[in-house]
Amino acid sequence: MDFSSDTSAPAHPAVIDALARVNSGMEGSYGNDSVTARVRKLLAQTFETDDFDMWMCASGTASNALALALLCPPTGAILCHAEAHIERDERGAPEFFTGGGKLALLKGDAARIDEQALRKALASIQRDFVHETPAHALSLTNLTECGTAYPTEQIKHYAALAHESGLTVHLDGARFGNALASTGASPAQMSWQAGVDILTFGLTKTGAIGCEIILLFGKSRAKFAELQARAKRSGHMPPKMRYLAAQAEAMLTGELWLTLAKTANAQATRLANALSAQPDVSLRYPVDGNEVFIALPDALAEKLQKAGAKFYSWPGDCYRFVCAWSTTEAEIDALVDVVAG
Amino acid sequence: MDFSSDTSAPAHPAVIDALARVNSGMEGSYGNDSVTARVRKLLAQTFETDDFDMWMCASGTASNALALALLCPPTGAILCHAEAHIERDERGAPEFFTGGGKLALLKGDAARIDEQALRKALASIQRDFVHETPAHALSLTNLTECGTAYPTEQIKHYAALAHESGLTVHLDGARFGNALASTGASPAQMSWQAGVDILTFGLTKTGAIGCEIILLFGKSRAKFAELQARAKRSGHMPPKMRYLAAQAEAMLTGELWLTLAKTANAQATRLANALSAQPDVSLRYPVDGNEVFIALPDALAEKLQKAGAKFYSWPGDCYRFVCAWSTTEAEIDALVDVVAG
Amino acid sequence: MDFSSDTSAPAHPAVIDALARVNSGMEGSYGNDSVTARVRKLLAQTFETDDFDMWMCASGTASNALALALLCPPTGAILCHAEAHIERDERGAPEFFTGGGKLALLKGDAARIDEQALRKALASIQRDFVHETPAHALSLTNLTECGTAYPTEQIKHYAALAHESGLTVHLDGARFGNALASTGASPAQMSWQAGVDILTFGLTKTGAIGCEIILLFGKSRAKFAELQARAKRSGHMPPKMRYLAAQAEAMLTGELWLTLAKTANAQATRLANALSAQPDVSLRYPVDGNEVFIALPDALAEKLQKAGAKFYSWPGDCYRFVCAWSTTEAEIDALVDVVAG
Amino acid sequence: MDFSSDTSAPAHPAVIDALARVNSGMEGSYGNDSVTARVRKLLAQTFETDDFDMWMCASGTASNALALALLCPPTGAILCHAEAHIERDERGAPEFFTGGGKLALLKGDAARIDEQALRKALASIQRDFVHETPAHALSLTNLTECGTAYPTEQIKHYAALAHESGLTVHLDGARFGNALASTGASPAQMSWQAGVDILTFGLTKTGAIGCEIILLFGKSRAKFAELQARAKRSGHMPPKMRYLAAQAEAMLTGELWLTLAKTANAQATRLANALSAQPDVSLRYPVDGNEVFIALPDALAEKLQKAGAKFYSWPGDCYRFVCAWSTTEAEIDALVDVVAG
Repeated sequence: MDFSSDTSAPAHPAVIDALARVNSGMEGSYGNDSVTARVRKLLAQTFETDDFDMWMCASGTASNALALALLCPPTGAILCHAEAHIERDERGAPEFFTGGGKLALLKGDAARIDEQALRKALASIQRDFVHETPAHALSLTNLTECGTAYPTEQIKHYAALAHESGLTVHLDGARFGNALASTGASPAQMSWQAGVDILTFGLTKTGAIGCEIILLFGKSRAKFAELQARAKRSGHMPPKMRYLAAQAEAMLTGELWLTLAKTANAQATRLANALSAQPDVSLRYPVDGNEVFIALPDALAEKLQKAGAKFYSWPGDCYRFVCAWSTTEAEIDALVDVVAG
Repeated sequence: MDFSSDTSAPAHPAVIDALARVNSGMEGSYGNDSVTARVRKLLAQTFETDDFDMWMCASGTASNALALALLCPPTGAILCHAEAHIERDERGAPEFFTGGGKLALLKGDAARIDEQALRKALASIQRDFVHETPAHALSLTNLTECGTAYPTEQIKHYAALAHESGLTVHLDGARFGNALASTGASPAQMSWQAGVDILTFGLTKTGAIGCEIILLFGKSRAKFAELQARAKRSGHMPPKMRYLAAQAEAMLTGELWLTLAKTANAQATRLANALSAQPDVSLRYPVDGNEVFIALPDALAEKLQKAGAKFYSWPGDCYRFVCAWSTTEAEIDALVDVVAG
Repeated sequence: MDFSSDTSAPAHPAVIDALARVNSGMEGSYGNDSVTARVRKLLAQTFETDDFDMWMCASGTASNALALALLCPPTGAILCHAEAHIERDERGAPEFFTGGGKLALLKGDAARIDEQALRKALASIQRDFVHETPAHALSLTNLTECGTAYPTEQIKHYAALAHESGLTVHLDGARFGNALASTGASPAQMSWQAGVDILTFGLTKTGAIGCEIILLFGKSRAKFAELQARAKRSGHMPPKMRYLAAQAEAMLTGELWLTLAKTANAQATRLANALSAQPDVSLRYPVDGNEVFIALPDALAEKLQKAGAKFYSWPGDCYRFVCAWSTTEAEIDALVDVVAG
Repeated sequence: MDFSSDTSAPAHPAVIDALARVNSGMEGSYGNDSVTARVRKLLAQTFETDDFDMWMCASGTASNALALALLCPPTGAILCHAEAHIERDERGAPEFFTGGGKLALLKGDAARIDEQALRKALASIQRDFVHETPAHALSLTNLTECGTAYPTEQIKHYAALAHESGLTVHLDGARFGNALASTGASPAQMSWQAGVDILTFGLTKTGAIGCEIILLFGKSRAKFAELQARAKRSGHMPPKMRYLAAQAEAMLTGELWLTLAKTANAQATRLANALSAQPDVSLRYPVDGNEVFIALPDALAEKLQKAGAKFYSWPGDCYRFVCAWSTTEAEIDALVDVVAG
């Protein structure tokens, strides 16, 4: 009954198998290997396009920060939600990688940016007013930090607004699979077709060891050489890239990543349903993915913890339960039994 | 017959096995896992001390840059050899991580800093002369970029000189095992006992997938919280740390890393001997580890390449051959046959 | 009738006279001159202490950013008001000088930080939680960006709260004289006696050409060598320092700066009184210094502009009128005539 | 007899007069003033072109660093002489402003880059080799740090070589007037006509208080908005710009700056001639401007110092004597008397 985090879960066995499979013979370093070449092909299929460049990175924080450094100069700002991971949980990585760019924080319920807030921020940009820091990029997160999903149409709409104002669009997809599973959108629909310029496509929380893919679509591909240079100097150009690639290959093959995301989502829904059937329990946010934010009576929370359940108390007077690909029905049942018993 | 790089080699099977072994159940994130705890104990044995802190990092470039950022402020400089990896091959990582610190380059044969050059640089530091950038740290590399080794006594001597001038000492040990195998020193002798404040202890080139360990000894431990913060913001705090730890555990258990380093060194020696027995062939530098820098007649180089041997031409009118843990006697024999045939 | 900005005003003639007076003979460079030595003595009198170090800088933006870089590491954050000059009007200077530190924005009426917001921010700091960026400094502004003044007691109280939580305190005193003139506090009372660790003491808006003084009090003096190094590398160590010093000397001698601040404040009060006596006119914020933020009917604003009055429309549906040391009664009278006529 | 530095000299009286003259009435802030507009016209005449943008800055260090930040990204390098001011005397300003770019140091006699060294550096650039830091700009200095001058033809030749390799060209002209006076070239000939993309045109050492002008020629004008943003965030956008402009106006009017540079050069020549006529005295470098580097017998140096002469001992076993616009024939005569007496 460990619902503390999807990063506490093990990797899917197929990932380990893939590592073993690629572990023989010499391969080119720094991405010049045959496994990486195969991953590129799998990505083309997954995203239904060839108009992209990609870089694999073990770290979600670095993937976001590298992407943002391509889109925002040191003298610029990035629009994001006030609760975005890049603002709250990355210890200043965007500021570090951009060379001192700023995050401009927007409000909105359930960690989704409010449209009026976005419009106001875009309208207030004065690119020629040297004293203020003009926004150069919009960073969205899907799933959001509250476990909610933007529908594809909203991403498309926000991206269009951003582009009209001369901004580029980054999507932090640390839980991209969960958002797709929840909304029914395809990878292409929720990324380049929606106007996303750079996607951080996360596979770590979905079931890899540590593998995120930075995808540059369309015009942003012009930044690929710069991305490589920045990856190199920040220590995100592993010499033995084949092992990152093997993780990606395992996850992309047969859409394993989506299957795992669906499983995690389904378990979260079951957990949410079971808990919210109890008296004085209320969901803090809609459960659009694998995370449940829920207000529990103190007695119930204690009872669960005594029974060995692991979960975090969270800002906003609630608790967070996270399901992973490895969360079993038995675990949910056990939790339900404690609640009921 | 692929001698292009030790980073083109696969990981040792024990490393993959270790990944599989730790791949079950939930574990704390960001280093709060049981595997990391075991690695700490193995390191205490390996380095014969408990007076250290450690951080694991998949990247050698980042490990060096993080270490240097602890030792040198943005307003300071780092003394290193003009051919050091941190100067030549890391795309400005030290400058990036330190926030604009400088590398001050020293000369010396075979990528080993010349004592007079070091003494002169130390003597010229004017800490109170605000216009110049005073050195705060000395960074040594062992094995050096030319495949040579500093004897432990020389490191100790240089570290003492540096400390006398108020500098701290970093050792880039990307090929630390090869240097130990070559010199016969123990890990403790070549690190904290020699006066090294921070060691970048590399296991990637030795046989891991991607695993370096930053070791803070003695007084430098006061910087551990800063190290964690800098690791976090640069994307070098993997949530699923257990998989980095598993690599380290596999390598440290039973001194596998040293065994592998010895193997690679031995193959390099055989290769060097075989090649240098040929006419018009001369070693550019002593072979103190797993790298052979050697001048070959054009005809011989072409002959080898035609036979399928892989190796790089190198600055200084020579070629570089690198042996890995996985280099076999058969490969060396095959090379020798081509040479002889 | 130019009320556009106190930075559009000329320098006080005494400042020009002082430049002429020091303009003979050779002087030491970079602050090693006799004029700078005299300024130090004047500052000791002005602030009633010898326990300080000081650096003169032509730029207010740089003075703030240099001060903040001493108080906040790249991995830390600075608490400030959401409308603070360092956030809104300095194009990312704090992020640049700190090497990627963050500003954490607090709310509060009239650009004064709300006590509950401050307490909440301080209480939420988790120094050992590596993912978040902990605040290291509190930056206050007096006069604030809305022309209001913190009373000395409030600064003292906020500084005490900050210190209890392990933060240091910066005061942006671009209009320090105006705040003193308004509150009746002495320079000492509103700075080191109130717990301010570093003060940016502005003389530019008060009547100099361009002269701000960074004052390090008490413990923060340990950072003086670092301040000099950072000033040097950011281009804020003028070789001919005597001319900055001459400005400071002219302003500090006989408390000219306070006299000029009082004049500017008095004119602003007259202007505010005259305008607010009109129908449908309301002050947006209390007039505690030399700035008037006021809501005017469109017709009145147009009438004034047609008559040649200069002032800016301002966020919050109001207009900003600024008085300088050089604003004359005749100008106010002329404005009043237009309003009345 | 103070030959310590041209930055120890006072400003020319015309500069102070100009400050007094512009010191009345309101003026636009941040460069939107009438004086700045006049300076632009004077620069167009001085440089015989309208195809430029310009920014005034009180600091030479900042002017160089701002210029370099426009020409070199954080991932790139700047070629310069190993003794260049930007390397030796600016405390890491280029690294700070570029966000961690590198300086790649070239050799050459008398602080002039050797052509073979330059050609070798250019030839070794591998723009697609991500591990190394490719050069993006060449920075020349005229006068050099050894008081020697590059002839215009050499600058033109070097700039052409740099451009062929895809680099841009910066000229550090802290003593630009002295170099022109020495070589007889016109400002246009030694800057844009020679292929210089950005010139740091120094007037401080020539006789201003603190006034350097960054001139963007031709294609580099596309970077002007970025220059303003970087100037703002580094504290080099003075609100009361008219006083910087007044200095420039005074110096440019009637070519005062060139007259003053010629005077300083002439005094240096007299000084050099007088000293080098003595036994055992030898000029270390040709005297192409206002600086004399000269080896003196210890007894002579002591004799001069005892007589009150001020000058610095310098690396390379010599002494540096600097003449300023204000150095008088009487001072040289007095020195000569001491030498002779």
